[in-house]
Amino acid sequence: MTKMGLTYTRNILVQTKEFEIVSCEWQKDSASALHNHDWSLCHVLVQEGVFENESHNGYRTEFSIYETGQVMSTPRGVEHRIKCLSAKGKTLHVYVPKLAESKTHLSPINIADIKKLVDLKVSNKGVKWNELSSELSKIREHSLSTNSVYFMNQLFSGVSAETIAADEVLTQTKTTMATFEASPVLSLVEVEVVKQLGEVIGWQQTEGITVPGGSSANFMALHCARQRRFENYKEEGLAGNKVKVFVSEEAHYSFRKACIVLGLGSNALVTIKADENGRLLMSDLSEKVSHAVQKGEVPLLVAATAGTTVFGAFDPVKEMAAFCKAQGIWLHVDGAWGGPVIFSKQHRHLIDGIQMADSFTFDAHKLFGANLTCSFFLTKHTTVLLEANDVSGGDYLFHESEMVDRGRLSWQCGRQAEAISFWTIWKSAGTSGLENFVDRMMKVREENAAWIQQQPRLKLLKNPDYLNICVQILPPRAGMDEAGWSLHVRNQLREKNLTMVNYSTTPDGTTFLRLILAHPKINSEIVQQIFQWALEVGLE
Amino acid sequence: MTKMGLTYTRNILVQTKEFEIVSCEWQKDSASALHNHDWSLCHVLVQEGVFENESHNGYRTEFSIYETGQVMSTPRGVEHRIKCLSAKGKTLHVYVPKLAESKTHLSPINIADIKKLVDLKVSNKGVKWNELSSELSKIREHSLSTNSVYFMNQLFSGVSAETIAADEVLTQTKTTMATFEASPVLSLVEVEVVKQLGEVIGWQQTEGITVPGGSSANFMALHCARQRRFENYKEEGLAGNKVKVFVSEEAHYSFRKACIVLGLGSNALVTIKADENGRLLMSDLSEKVSHAVQKGEVPLLVAATAGTTVFGAFDPVKEMAAFCKAQGIWLHVDGAWGGPVIFSKQHRHLIDGIQMADSFTFDAHKLFGANLTCSFFLTKHTTVLLEANDVSGGDYLFHESEMVDRGRLSWQCGRQAEAISFWTIWKSAGTSGLENFVDRMMKVREENAAWIQQQPRLKLLKNPDYLNICVQILPPRAGMDEAGWSLHVRNQLREKNLTMVNYSTTPDGTTFLRLILAHPKINSEIVQQIFQWALEVGLE
Repeated sequence: MTKMGLTYTRNILVQTKEFEIVSCEWQKDSASALHNHDWSLCHVLVQEGVFENESHNGYRTEFSIYETGQVMSTPRGVEHRIKCLSAKGKTLHVYVPKLAESKTHLSPINIADIKKLVDLKVSNKGVKWNELSSELSKIREHSLSTNSVYFMNQLFSGVSAETIAADEVLTQTKTTMATFEASPVLSLVEVEVVKQLGEVIGWQQTEGITVPGGSSANFMALHCARQRRFENYKEEGLAGNKVKVFVSEEAHYSFRKACIVLGLGSNALVTIKADENGRLLMSDLSEKVSHAVQKGEVPLLVAATAGTTVFGAFDPVKEMAAFCKAQGIWLHVDGAWGGPVIFSKQHRHLIDGIQMADSFTFDAHKLFGANLTCSFFLTKHTTVLLEANDVSGGDYLFHESEMVDRGRLSWQCGRQAEAISFWTIWKSAGTSGLENFVDRMMKVREENAAWIQQQPRLKLLKNPDYLNICVQILPPRAGMDEAGWSLHVRNQLREKNLTMVNYSTTPDGTTFLRLILAHPKINSEIVQQIFQWALEVGLE
Repeated sequence: MTKMGLTYTRNILVQTKEFEIVSCEWQKDSASALHNHDWSLCHVLVQEGVFENESHNGYRTEFSIYETGQVMSTPRGVEHRIKCLSAKGKTLHVYVPKLAESKTHLSPINIADIKKLVDLKVSNKGVKWNELSSELSKIREHSLSTNSVYFMNQLFSGVSAETIAADEVLTQTKTTMATFEASPVLSLVEVEVVKQLGEVIGWQQTEGITVPGGSSANFMALHCARQRRFENYKEEGLAGNKVKVFVSEEAHYSFRKACIVLGLGSNALVTIKADENGRLLMSDLSEKVSHAVQKGEVPLLVAATAGTTVFGAFDPVKEMAAFCKAQGIWLHVDGAWGGPVIFSKQHRHLIDGIQMADSFTFDAHKLFGANLTCSFFLTKHTTVLLEANDVSGGDYLFHESEMVDRGRLSWQCGRQAEAISFWTIWKSAGTSGLENFVDRMMKVREENAAWIQQQPRLKLLKNPDYLNICVQILPPRAGMDEAGWSLHVRNQLREKNLTMVNYSTTPDGTTFLRLILAHPKINSEIVQQIFQWALEVGLE
């Protein structure tokens, strides 16, 4: 069972499906290749000698020195390389669980096939653990590999070691954020993240709450604006008030949903035209607000989008902020996708004026890769969340406490401390690490935008503000279906299990691909590889 | 390093903080004690002989036979015992990570102490993995041990192996339930759980959606009732309609919050008196609905509570259903806490009439111990969720699909497949396992209620319908503060790190303890031990 590596000897002591124990002997400067262990835990005990462990996660590279008796632990989701620094060395490796190399699953799967592959039915008598584990493995195996660098379909990609570690804490502590007494430490984690985000935004004071997704943060913005505008709203509702909400035609659909759910009705939503770059047109906003005011309607909220879903466009926050201030309208900025630019000195100009906004949606589970969901509603009005959301009748739960129980600010009662996922990432990377990450992604975008413009069969739809690369693929020959070709390409690339990118359609019905740059390991070679594949697609 | 057990020899081969490798030699019928490994993974390779592994999780005991070359894996959160069936045997054990025995943390902790114990601040340059891991361990260590059988403060207790396994799948797949194409298998898991729950309820057809907590399910009920009642509601909102919502004074505070958030205003909420057992009074409901109708108001929704937060009372669902049917009012049943009785032939009578309800809140994270949160809004009106929640503007995301994308039924866009947590528990225990669990807990309640009534210093506030044991502790001597004594006892038991139980107050200001029976390992001895401690509390 001995295998000769280039410069070290590897001896498998025990090999089972569930774990593996390996012994290695090393000479000076011998090193393993850069590798990862998929979802396995990897622990290496230094039995003799001095070693360097180099580990890479998306945000940065870390070097550590280990001596005899110490253990190098590489967390799941991280690549590493071990190098012997002493004249010779000996190591003992334990891998748990020992998983078969996982296949990347990006191709489509239909309902009939899933039902054949996974036994979804629950039975009367239940199943033993081994059978249960096997079904869970099948669910994992046939689910999308969102951890692949070729997964570009959503506004997130990749699973980080930090996310996994933070989630383990949540699963094991399993406590509720409703009260400080049930979540003393985790309540402070949420408060800390809110406070620090407020400082990065540039507000003098901040209140905020973790909400179940960016849509919910947008709902909460409307709710807080309403609370501030109408004195007796909480008791009397909105009956009799004609209220309008203004968002770009490129804004997220959750604003329309918010108007319906919050009882205003979708007629309350006024959509503002966007310019050719997908940015809200100030002239149209100004006109439509005036029109509403003339009709005696109340302009309640204006929402700017920082990073639209399709084109990644940034609305002119500064101009909107000045306008809203003059008119006394609540300005909300939906930064679910583009919010991370607040961390970048180089790219923060995209969201200039954010410090004048009343509230902000920030999804740490998008670009920054926190677990789904890790969303924050943030506002500089520090009392409005409590005013809008605290009700009587919770005294069975909310006792006297050293701080305001977080449940009183929320629409949820029992909930997990989702904030810890982003806290762990931020703590690990540091503020500068988050900045570097944004800057590096933006550089990949820039390189690719330039490259695409030189390719005769690739048509860049807009020069991207942010990390959405929207490209039409032209068919290989004239006379072929130009409008539908990009969708055909998308489907073929999925069928071949190469990549999963999303698509959209221009008003004239032409389809185009939307590649999202979010995976921490993305680089220009990977993006260009995808376009290479796209160009190779034929009719088949 | 050899330690002689009673009947087997244990030889520690490698011991580090991160993992441990142990070799054991056995004789026929020698067995380990029943033990667990806290948050460690335990894998045992049979190197020689035949072994039986007996494992206990909350729902049941499982026996499996293993032969040479096979591995017995005991998941986290499970107790097990190994027994040698052959003349002699040899096993190799791998434990990862090797954790120090964890202390149970139930005592209060203040903000200043937390800040000393955990470094909550994020820095500019970040921290290395070892430091990050250490901070996460500290967060876990100083958070409440909700896995302790002495944690009875919330409407849940215990962390199961199933929950941990399901969560691992979610963390690693990290995909969104918004669309079928992003979550093909997990969408079917959600659909399956909804369908099966509907069958247990007794509805002929069911639609439902996972929502972020029981409060959200109650919000959704109001939203769907409104959608059904007012034809142009979605476009026009509720302006001009005088709408009333009827709930018991013992109902969850989320109904009041729902009225505010959904734009009706808290004045829309009419509270109905409860009888001496905490159950809604039909006569008062009937009177208040008539009164509203006379005033030209629209009675939109009546909510019955199945298992109130304080007393665990069940409103008379059957009478309410008949009344609502006659009046054409939407009947919602909030079964967040008491809903599990639908699984018990013996106790289902508590919720009799449920099949006539229009909608149901079911929290799998409460009694059944799924991860926080795993909540379902269920309705027999199969089209109402789509009617109420689908909006235009999501075409960048919702493409043609083999099934309706789940995001179109939801208030959330990106979200995890929380349903898998309950699916895993249900799949493991089986429907009969869930039934047995409810019945066993109810038996513990019965035994304790009888026992308490014999104790001179324990005063049972109500004969419990369900798993809330509400008891006033009388002080040891006459003349001591009787009203505040139970709260004093509660605080003392926490200070001593013995137990965490919640408390509440009667209208006359007398405090009492509320013990929640939910932990799968609870039994009468444990409950009586807690009362024994409670009786021993002095003035100190």
